[in-house]
Parts: sequence; structure tokens; C-alpha cells
Amino acid sequence: MAVYTHLGAEDMAALLAPYHLGDLVSAKGIAEGVSNSNWLIETADTATPGGTTRYILTMYEFRIEIADLPYFLGLLDHLAAKGCPVPRSIHDGAGNLYRVVETPRGDRALALIEFLPGVSLGEPTAGQARAVGAALASLHDAAADYPATRANGMGLAEWQRLADACGPEGLASIDPALAQTVADHLPRLAAQWPTGLPSGVIHADLFPDNVLMQGETVTGLIDFYFACNDVIAYDLAVTHAAWCFDASGETFRPDLSAALLDGYASVRTLSAQERAALPLLAQGAAMRFAMSRAYDWLNTPADALVTRKDPMAFARRLHFYADPANSGVFAA
Amino acid sequence: MAVYTHLGAEDMAALLAPYHLGDLVSAKGIAEGVSNSNWLIETADTATPGGTTRYILTMYEFRIEIADLPYFLGLLDHLAAKGCPVPRSIHDGAGNLYRVVETPRGDRALALIEFLPGVSLGEPTAGQARAVGAALASLHDAAADYPATRANGMGLAEWQRLADACGPEGLASIDPALAQTVADHLPRLAAQWPTGLPSGVIHADLFPDNVLMQGETVTGLIDFYFACNDVIAYDLAVTHAAWCFDASGETFRPDLSAALLDGYASVRTLSAQERAALPLLAQGAAMRFAMSRAYDWLNTPADALVTRKDPMAFARRLHFYADPANSGVFAA
Repeated sequence: MAVYTHLGAEDMAALLAPYHLGDLVSAKGIAEGVSNSNWLIETADTATPGGTTRYILTMYEFRIEIADLPYFLGLLDHLAAKGCPVPRSIHDGAGNLYRVVETPRGDRALALIEFLPGVSLGEPTAGQARAVGAALASLHDAAADYPATRANGMGLAEWQRLADACGPEGLASIDPALAQTVADHLPRLAAQWPTGLPSGVIHADLFPDNVLMQGETVTGLIDFYFACNDVIAYDLAVTHAAWCFDASGETFRPDLSAALLDGYASVRTLSAQERAALPLLAQGAAMRFAMSRAYDWLNTPADALVTRKDPMAFARRLHFYADPANSGVFAA
Repeated sequence: MAVYTHLGAEDMAALLAPYHLGDLVSAKGIAEGVSNSNWLIETADTATPGGTTRYILTMYEFRIEIADLPYFLGLLDHLAAKGCPVPRSIHDGAGNLYRVVETPRGDRALALIEFLPGVSLGEPTAGQARAVGAALASLHDAAADYPATRANGMGLAEWQRLADACGPEGLASIDPALAQTVADHLPRLAAQWPTGLPSGVIHADLFPDNVLMQGETVTGLIDFYFACNDVIAYDLAVTHAAWCFDASGETFRPDLSAALLDGYASVRTLSAQERAALPLLAQGAAMRFAMSRAYDWLNTPADALVTRKDPMAFARRLHFYADPANSGVFAA
């Protein structure tokens, strides 16, 4: 949640020149994204006097491989063309999806995307969770013929790598129980991880932060920078873990869970195999965020502009999903 | 440059309810302000279908005394009514300029102000510096009959207090020369500080960050949270120190200096006494920012969301202004 690169008006105008937009009317650095800087910019419409159009300008600062940008940005265009509420990418005058520019901090890739209205939820209602489930299923359907592929860099092997990088002492320094949680569950998840389930393009990070809504309408699915090809039902499991608990992970919300699953099923039918796999996939989703947060917790520089997130909130979800008493959560 | 408090859509809607605006259409935390959280919000116009209005919502997090808010926010309304390009404050349904709300981090004051278009400059042109000088003079004229008063909390006594709080060792830890700079100049500034100059409402922090422009037009003077009653020409000195050097303070820009002073004089005539005092006032302005930055440099928590600014950039300006070779800078 930061803007890592300061841009004055002239810098901004120079960066935007290749897009042949109207004059810059306003620009605000926005507090979104942890691996990139983002600005909400507004330019004058050349056709409509007094009218303006808004865009999001993103400068990729960390973690993003430039080679992955065509997958992410092309996916936005593919989904938008099929009516999904995702921001279209704006191509420059030469048709480029992104550009690489020199900055005082080194070369950076830059992309311009559509601004979408809507507000991220803090505490969703059941109606909103239902809409999110339906939007996720529509995304899965619309992406079925997306031709590019990208491996999931945050899959099982990476959870193990992150756990190893933290080490038992590191995990225990976060919470005395965390090392044991990992030792108990990670080998089991690896051994039991389902195979043969339908695979496709997944968002892989559909937290409330990444959904813009107006009332019960999803107006934007954003931040596709973990999108990849993987088990489709795993994406539903990630979304379930992200939406159906309070922030601490202590309180499960059965009403939101039922609504999210209903909404999803209203658009895309889950096979019996997918439904049966959901409890395990959800444990994996919880492990994925517990491990990435644990790693970030131990490795976030003290002077970082981002706030660390509590890994235990997802360790608690993992225990919830692994508890046989909760096996009915995903039943049809 | 941060958003310290996370607000979901429901929190935001609840905070805005007393203002009787239309439905919330979008909300983005923006990376402006170091002592407050700011959101650019957009609400539906009740009268114009499809139309929206934008506002800036500010939550005061640090440093601001709630007792000062009526001075700051009332000043915006006073200046806006006289045609100055400043954001009007939006009063709630009960006429309040600000409200105090409970947050997880404690009680916070909250205000809503107009959104103004424009972009902050990185490197101004002479034409832009001229416009800023004129806008500053217009502000001084328009504020002449503002009835409220507020002492300058960042005046001479505070520079001394900040220098003492840093201590010679602290100052030397920033730069070996800084302690000597303070010892050489601060007692002299205190002894020679001019008296009897015209006093009035000053902005006291008119850095490029706090000026929105479109081309050579000033569309917004913002961030009045250091505004106070003090020597009017000191405000011009602060603005001069903020605009007429490169960021490091090493390179003086005579073209910007001449344009800024010309622009100011085109609206408000500086008396001979004011002009004669400007070299000393500018040394004071440079000392003020050198000392506040030095204090912040030594006292910014390692996990702060804000980036420290180099005190030496203003120590260099102080040396520039104190050099008799540069005494002609402020000559008519």
C-alpha cells in the first residue's frame, strides 16, 4: 500500500505521451498494491469539451516478472471482451500492452488500465458474497479459451520452499504453534493433493481488496498479478478462505460461505470430484497465505512502506478446514 | 504519504452518512499527507443521473490539534469565497466543519473537502513559478480579513527546541557539518529576526506538493495544516526556498526565483522593509525545514509509512541565502 516512485506532473505527462491521451487533468498516487506503485489519473477528453476519462497507471516495482505481463494484461482484455467486470488494458500508440521506462530507481515496466468504479468491502453481506461467487465462476468460464498459460508460482512447492526459508525457529518466533501446524499439515497436503481436477485460468488472490462493488453488483475484479493456470476449484477455495471469516480467522461465517458457494454454482456447476476436493483445497489455500505471510513477516524490511499481515489468521483457517467437524461446509 | 486507517465500503458509507451525499461510487486511499489519511471519494449526484462528485476525505492521525481544525477549515471557506483556488470544506448536515469518530486506533477527527483538479509539479517552469507567486500574494490579500488567529507553532522558538532535541551529536550523525551550521546561524537568526513587518495569515508550507496546476494555471492550493498568523513576507521566503532550488538544495534557479518574486509583486506590493528582510527570512525558512527534517530524521520510527527527507537539502539553502554573494536575489 504505497507509492514507491515519486512522479511530478512533467514526469507523468512524459510517461503518458505514448498513449495519445488528452491533457493530464489530475493525478493521485493511490494506496493500493504492495508490489507496484499506482496512480489514478484523469485526462481531458479530446472529443467532449469538459469531459474527462480516468485510468490507473501502474509501475511494477517488485516481484513481477516482466515476461509475465503479457499474460496478465492480455487476460484483462480477454475477460473484458467477454463482459467480465475487469479493467481493460490501454495499449500505447504502437499497440504495446506495457512499456519499460527508466526511473531513478532503475528500469521499470509500466501499464495503463481502465479505471473502474466501485468500493472494496470490509464486511460483505450474504448478497455480496453471492455476487462474488457468481463473478468468480463467470471469470473461470470466460477464461476457458484464453490461449496463454502461466504456471502457479505460489503452488505446493512454493509453500514448502517458504516454510523451509522461514525455518522452524522462524515460524515459532511468529507463534509457538505455527511450526507444529506446518509440520502436521504440509506433508499431508502434499501427499493428498488432488489430481485430475479441471484446470484453467484462476485469479488466485480474490480477496475483498481485489473486488470492487456497488451495492450487490460486482463492478470490478482487479489485481490479476497472481493469475495462473491451476485447479479451477482451488480458486474457489482461495476465495472462500478470503471471504468467509473475520479478519483474525477466528470466526467462520456460514451465511457468507453458503452464499458464495451458491453464487458460484449458479454460473458454473462444480463436479462431484471438485466438491469433494474443496475441503483439502481450502486447507491448501489457507496454508498458501499462512506461508507467504509468515515469510513476509520475517523478511519485511523494517523501513518497508507496507504493513505486515498476520500469518496466524490463515493458520486458524487451516485448522478450521482440517477439522472433520467442518467437513459439511462444502457439501452441496 | 500513507493511509494509516483501513476503511471498507461500509465504514466509509457510515462516515459519510452525516453529509447527506449520494451513494458512494468509488473510494481510493491516496498517498498524500504525512500526518493524516486521505481518500479520494466519488458519490452519485442525486440531481444528475449518472453524474458524480468527488471529494477528499481526511482523517487526522498525528500532529494536528483538533482545536486548530476550525482555523484551518474555516480559512479554506474564507479563501474559496474570495475566489482563491482552495478546496471548500464540506459541512455535515448539522453544519459541522469536522466530526470526531471512533476508530480501532482511537478517536479521530474527520473532515470532507472539495476535490480540485490539477497536478503537482516536479520541475516548474518560470511561467509556473510566476503563477504560484501571484497565487500566494492573492492568498495573503484574501486572508487579510480572516477573523481567526493561530500562532505559528513552527517559528523561531520551535527551531531552537528541535535543534536542542536533536542535540549536537544527533545533528552531527546526520552530517558532520550540520551541528556547526546550527551553532553558527541559529543564534544569529534569533538575534537579527526582523520585527515590525506586516503580519497576516500565511500558508507556511507552500511546497510544489501543495500546489495543483494545469499548465500555468494554479488550480489548487492545498494542505493548510501549518497555516498560522505570522510575518507575511516569511511565507514568500518559505515558498522561495521550496521552489527555487533543485531537490538537493545544491542548484539555485535564478529564473524561477525572478519569476516567483515578479508574480508575487504583480498582486501584492512588497514594502522596502519586507524586501530588505527577505534574505534573513529565507535563511529562517531554510533553518525551519532543516530543523524539522533533522528531528524527523532522528525520530522517524523504523517501521514508519513515511519516507524521511534529507535535512541537508535545506542546510545548503541556508548557506546559499546567508552568503553575501547572493544578497541580490531578492532585490527589486
